[in-house]
Amino acid sequence: MSFLPHLESVVNQVEGALACSVMGFDGIAVETHQKPDAGDLELATAWVEYANVLGQLKSAAEMLKTGTVSEVSVNTERVLTLMRMVSPEYFLVLALKANGNYGKGRYVLRITAPKVRAEL
Amino acid sequence: MSFLPHLESVVNQVEGALACSVMGFDGIAVETHQKPDAGDLELATAWVEYANVLGQLKSAAEMLKTGTVSEVSVNTERVLTLMRMVSPEYFLVLALKANGNYGKGRYVLRITAPKVRAEL
Repeated sequence: MSFLPHLESVVNQVEGALACSVMGFDGIAVETHQKPDAGDLELATAWVEYANVLGQLKSAAEMLKTGTVSEVSVNTERVLTLMRMVSPEYFLVLALKANGNYGKGRYVLRITAPKVRAEL
Repeated sequence: MSFLPHLESVVNQVEGALACSVMGFDGIAVETHQKPDAGDLELATAWVEYANVLGQLKSAAEMLKTGTVSEVSVNTERVLTLMRMVSPEYFLVLALKANGNYGKGRYVLRITAPKVRAEL
């Protein structure tokens, strides 16, 4: 179980990335890689809220015909947040600056999720 | 107050678009333009759930330093859903096929939101 190399790789590959975590749906981060300049954004607090919401969406989507939720994004004026399911218990979160490379972030999370799943 | 031309314009501009609505945070659609082939996806039911979650995220983000939530996306295996705030009471929802043009969808919702706001 070594998540850190994957998280570092995500942050290094995506322009404007601030931090990347493996989180449980209880809102607790298993492992985080954060850039120094992300310190004042209270990302951890935001992510606890998002984990809660993501859990609700997951159960909502399971009852619908649109299928299981695989990806959720919550964007504010300052921070873009991408979340990608890893397993029924865990997900990846990536925070980007508002002008960061959103498309690249989606792509890198998609290819990283199976690698993190293999470490669980 | 005429939302329909804006909603039709969004659906016509974005490859893979299924439907576009102006919705209130109570989960009630004010106006919808839907393509005929979107019929079996129970989009309306999904959107009521999403509206609820979006409302929670909005109040969560207001307490945080990351700023007000402007955009939320919930993607399942079959449908990509983009939501963009229009006003404190209303938002735009766009549903796309999983292989639809997501980046174009984000762009078109961003430029359409102020036009819809002007009609409120």
